[in-house]
Amino acid sequence: MTTEAAAVLDSPPLGTTMRALVKETAGPGAAIREVPVPQPGPGQILVKVLAASVCGTDVHIERWDKWAQDNFGPPPMTFGHEMAGIVVARGDGATRIPVGELIAAETHWVDWTCYQCRTGRAHVCQNNRTLGVKVPGAFAQYVVMPEMNAWVSEHLTPEIAALQEPLGNAVHAAFVEEVAGQTAVVTGCGPIGLMSIGVLKMAGARAVYATDINPERLEMAKKMGADLALDAREDIVGQLKAATDGNGVDIVLEMSGSAAALHQGLAAVTNGGRVSLLGTHAVPATLDLSQEIIFKGVRVYGITGRRLWDTWYRTTALLEEGLNIEPIITHRLPLADYQKAFDLVESGHAGKIVLLPQAES
Amino acid sequence: MTTEAAAVLDSPPLGTTMRALVKETAGPGAAIREVPVPQPGPGQILVKVLAASVCGTDVHIERWDKWAQDNFGPPPMTFGHEMAGIVVARGDGATRIPVGELIAAETHWVDWTCYQCRTGRAHVCQNNRTLGVKVPGAFAQYVVMPEMNAWVSEHLTPEIAALQEPLGNAVHAAFVEEVAGQTAVVTGCGPIGLMSIGVLKMAGARAVYATDINPERLEMAKKMGADLALDAREDIVGQLKAATDGNGVDIVLEMSGSAAALHQGLAAVTNGGRVSLLGTHAVPATLDLSQEIIFKGVRVYGITGRRLWDTWYRTTALLEEGLNIEPIITHRLPLADYQKAFDLVESGHAGKIVLLPQAES
Amino acid sequence: MTTEAAAVLDSPPLGTTMRALVKETAGPGAAIREVPVPQPGPGQILVKVLAASVCGTDVHIERWDKWAQDNFGPPPMTFGHEMAGIVVARGDGATRIPVGELIAAETHWVDWTCYQCRTGRAHVCQNNRTLGVKVPGAFAQYVVMPEMNAWVSEHLTPEIAALQEPLGNAVHAAFVEEVAGQTAVVTGCGPIGLMSIGVLKMAGARAVYATDINPERLEMAKKMGADLALDAREDIVGQLKAATDGNGVDIVLEMSGSAAALHQGLAAVTNGGRVSLLGTHAVPATLDLSQEIIFKGVRVYGITGRRLWDTWYRTTALLEEGLNIEPIITHRLPLADYQKAFDLVESGHAGKIVLLPQAES
Amino acid sequence: MTTEAAAVLDSPPLGTTMRALVKETAGPGAAIREVPVPQPGPGQILVKVLAASVCGTDVHIERWDKWAQDNFGPPPMTFGHEMAGIVVARGDGATRIPVGELIAAETHWVDWTCYQCRTGRAHVCQNNRTLGVKVPGAFAQYVVMPEMNAWVSEHLTPEIAALQEPLGNAVHAAFVEEVAGQTAVVTGCGPIGLMSIGVLKMAGARAVYATDINPERLEMAKKMGADLALDAREDIVGQLKAATDGNGVDIVLEMSGSAAALHQGLAAVTNGGRVSLLGTHAVPATLDLSQEIIFKGVRVYGITGRRLWDTWYRTTALLEEGLNIEPIITHRLPLADYQKAFDLVESGHAGKIVLLPQAES
Repeated sequence: MTTEAAAVLDSPPLGTTMRALVKETAGPGAAIREVPVPQPGPGQILVKVLAASVCGTDVHIERWDKWAQDNFGPPPMTFGHEMAGIVVARGDGATRIPVGELIAAETHWVDWTCYQCRTGRAHVCQNNRTLGVKVPGAFAQYVVMPEMNAWVSEHLTPEIAALQEPLGNAVHAAFVEEVAGQTAVVTGCGPIGLMSIGVLKMAGARAVYATDINPERLEMAKKMGADLALDAREDIVGQLKAATDGNGVDIVLEMSGSAAALHQGLAAVTNGGRVSLLGTHAVPATLDLSQEIIFKGVRVYGITGRRLWDTWYRTTALLEEGLNIEPIITHRLPLADYQKAFDLVESGHAGKIVLLPQAES
Repeated sequence: MTTEAAAVLDSPPLGTTMRALVKETAGPGAAIREVPVPQPGPGQILVKVLAASVCGTDVHIERWDKWAQDNFGPPPMTFGHEMAGIVVARGDGATRIPVGELIAAETHWVDWTCYQCRTGRAHVCQNNRTLGVKVPGAFAQYVVMPEMNAWVSEHLTPEIAALQEPLGNAVHAAFVEEVAGQTAVVTGCGPIGLMSIGVLKMAGARAVYATDINPERLEMAKKMGADLALDAREDIVGQLKAATDGNGVDIVLEMSGSAAALHQGLAAVTNGGRVSLLGTHAVPATLDLSQEIIFKGVRVYGITGRRLWDTWYRTTALLEEGLNIEPIITHRLPLADYQKAFDLVESGHAGKIVLLPQAES
Repeated sequence: MTTEAAAVLDSPPLGTTMRALVKETAGPGAAIREVPVPQPGPGQILVKVLAASVCGTDVHIERWDKWAQDNFGPPPMTFGHEMAGIVVARGDGATRIPVGELIAAETHWVDWTCYQCRTGRAHVCQNNRTLGVKVPGAFAQYVVMPEMNAWVSEHLTPEIAALQEPLGNAVHAAFVEEVAGQTAVVTGCGPIGLMSIGVLKMAGARAVYATDINPERLEMAKKMGADLALDAREDIVGQLKAATDGNGVDIVLEMSGSAAALHQGLAAVTNGGRVSLLGTHAVPATLDLSQEIIFKGVRVYGITGRRLWDTWYRTTALLEEGLNIEPIITHRLPLADYQKAFDLVESGHAGKIVLLPQAES
Repeated sequence: MTTEAAAVLDSPPLGTTMRALVKETAGPGAAIREVPVPQPGPGQILVKVLAASVCGTDVHIERWDKWAQDNFGPPPMTFGHEMAGIVVARGDGATRIPVGELIAAETHWVDWTCYQCRTGRAHVCQNNRTLGVKVPGAFAQYVVMPEMNAWVSEHLTPEIAALQEPLGNAVHAAFVEEVAGQTAVVTGCGPIGLMSIGVLKMAGARAVYATDINPERLEMAKKMGADLALDAREDIVGQLKAATDGNGVDIVLEMSGSAAALHQGLAAVTNGGRVSLLGTHAVPATLDLSQEIIFKGVRVYGITGRRLWDTWYRTTALLEEGLNIEPIITHRLPLADYQKAFDLVESGHAGKIVLLPQAES
């Protein structure tokens, strides 16, 4: 057991209260509140949260947009899901992971019994409940989760451990087919797009191109190893064709959720290439299916979550091999500064922001 | 050499004229004309056309819609591409297939040297020229083609041999992933949709459902083996969920080119399932990519042409195993009746129509 | 609840004794004994065994050969694993399958936490304990198993339900790659070989050839749909080449455990084809790896168990589609006639033998 | 056209003689002889050989072992196949590659019409004739080959261009399945084994282990990036299990042709892992198929040649990405020193040796 874990255990949290960021009502806003420390049920663990990074989803929940209205809660409920922390207590039957271990959360609580879960596709479980969306989340000093959902992360810092969840999205999107020796474009350089640049380079992509309309993000794309970082308002297709002997790119990772970016990706992908869609689209997109997909013989993959647990093994491996995602973290803030964090995310002037629930504000 | 072949060779066609259906000008219409019998160049063969079936593309060309304006010709040029016939002469270097052999045409004339052709994806060759669209076609008594494009079809009738080309589309769409033991829906029961029902059943699909709005086609779907033939104006998704224990179908083959059908297919496909798009969309389709593809973890395959030559081997095998596509042929007409054929296709009151270029009108 | 289930529940079995076939000592033989009805622990179910078919493994255990000495038990322990029966009681936390349901057993008790189990390969779990080999088996009136291992089989007879386990072996071996439109040879027509003939035909194989040295089995191979049933002492390779235009077969399913059969399969497989090894080899085999595998570019798959649960879904689907494996059952015997059953299996004069633990001897 | 090409063309070689290394009789030995410069036939090119590296096969031919007796020639014939050079003349119809271009040879002359060639498996063509084995080879100042077999290599040095052929073997073996984030062992650190270490690292393998019994080769393995270079006479399996949390390695590339190495690889591979066999076995190997392959659920790939042209595209990409195989070249010798080269290869005290046919001895 680590010293930190021991210190944690000096102050057993059960039966006491904790700070948490709570979505209180079905409308915009959120608030720090003192709430009871949750109790781990059978097969569950209680985790002291050391790092909880901010996802675009969290901003949707705080802003209370249509997606949040349709999917969250119901309020009042704590939100936040990208997290890492120390196991501090275990419910009945939770015996695999010792108290004191650093873990990260697979945020999809799946049922393990539906058709999808029983055929290697648990990431699209029919009865998935996502941490911080359907069950109380990790923007709090403590969180409970099924022991099955914990990924032991002993050699990582808490903030990198927390980032394995979105990094896993990038790994999932990149690795639906082979990468080595292939050319790729990442459309959209938000945090997952930036991570995917590193993933593709680490996996031996021949070249990785990145597009965005935000110059700060294009700068970060270069730092992550992009061979070219292109302003999406320019002639992306022409530049990508020129860079690939006229063939177009083998791989498109669409990380922006923008229809314009998707059109560029579909125009730039080589005939018979493949496109991963991960960026979520707030509004429907209008596609010329014949010209953009059918006659080109393109494969389009809808990507959500992480393959359990292939993606996590790969993600751990890449970090161990030296994949450095730390440059993507631009801010570390105490939980109390959540409003600043959400504003920064929305403004686009941030990479990944890590909230620290144990820090005094 | 067969008797028929010998008879053919009694009347060497080179240097003479033949009947052909010619698109004469850049506008609606077409006409039967006497044109010179073409000469096979190096690596090419001359084929006496015994059967040439009508594809929707041919109607587009005759009607001269936007697709035709963008892709055909230029006029004047003979059109028609789904065909079978007897080899009657060979150009220099064409030595593989003997004169007298019954062959069908792979209608994509590909360059064999581009990136796609050199990586097992010749069906999406960057420089493809399609028979009857970019080079003179098979609605004629004779046609030339590269010997490479001829598929020896010795045990088939000419009309079934000609139908291997669209049947290959169905095989390609169905076989992008495994079929045995899976449930499938075919949306759109035109000729290729109908063929794909037979293909899926032959390949051990657990159940094959079919949708259309045309009762005649739904009747044919049942004849081809569909377990359920459903009126697409009813609650398709509800019926398919009910038929699959609530899971939805594993496989969608979208054969209609209708956005409404595609929405139904995407709603009915099980999470993590797969969708083949073959039906061409005349107008753009508006999709909720997040809900219909991304969060469901669906794979979408754009399908065009036939894999060279995997698809042809499979197609031949299925016919040999007993796949019966003859019920799909509803009309056999002399070439001179082309106008009637095109009208029938457009009306939807026909399955496949085979034109007979050698028949006296 | 079915009438039979209700009847079962009239006589609650817990705390009483039952008939079981027990391997009593580390040497040849076995005996029917009265032993306590086992109690389902947490997550387990108690099943009344209605059918338990005999596997070659059971004969090895009874004969006490080297494999049995290395792998069984330790004695005394009940053996038998291919089974189906009615759930009659459930331990704590076993809530998915209602009492009264007919289930079959996935016989691999896996740990669900090792590297293999967490990456979609539970069939090769590092800590697998097989029912009737490492834990008390199903040649008994009752058996306990993890609820996770039960496959609901409501529309099947108990004997067919029991046969899903070896049928799943055949499905696993056949479906490692696509089958439709491919030629295949099954070397060895024991029960799993015979089942695999039916599986391949149902999945649209172009042709299925079968080999064995036992004329009775070759007769059964024809009944299961083999296009050719060949005496393995004759020129198998020549006949298979002749049947496949000189190309050789696309698929080899090696079901005999005989090195001679494997050599024939490797010689008969087409360059770049695939070979599934399922038959267990009692003695090492000597292979010319360069000529038989490397220069031919062949893929060899070691097959054990069933993919959890892809194989079970496929197996259920094939039975629902009409796969008829009933002709493979040649004997139905009360449990007390186990000696006769084992002798018949060893003699080769039997297909599958089903023992009936509830039948009076 | 490059200056070198222009210089070449100043001295048109047709109708003159050249130096070549000729296998003169069916017995040990070879000799430098003056032979006519070959003429390119239809579709062929004449290439001035700038570099020709030595393969183990060449030593077999010179030594005249059983494989050579069964496969070579017949004598008298020039041998040598790994090569690069400048196109100096073109036969009729060879129009794709301009005179003056640096090319490397795909050494398999395949027929492009057999079942394998028409289904994406030309590397196992039924009628393959290998350069320098069945048709006159490249240990000569000039060689002819089909233009189809030439791979344009404009940005490489001739010696690296020549090495693409064995490097392609390594790429083929490594890339039969995904590599990124996986652990691998390379058994046998001859030139192809050494190259494969670099390939695996470039493609993002989590760790690459290497085994050999030759300390010089183990040193080179480290230079190529091996995480561990292990003496194959020690406890390889124990060390690899220890290095992989007890799981064993995901990937085995067997490059030695030694049964002992293969046994180690099969014992070290994780359950459900994969093994590529590339090293050719001079004598049959005896395997416990049940324990080593079947019960472990292992996939074994026979690897020969290079996928046309997927492997070549990947190989080019890896070199472009920075894969450095130059350390593997230990000697550069004039063609006249062939005997020294063969002796060095046989002794194991060399990496790759490049012969220079244009150099004065």
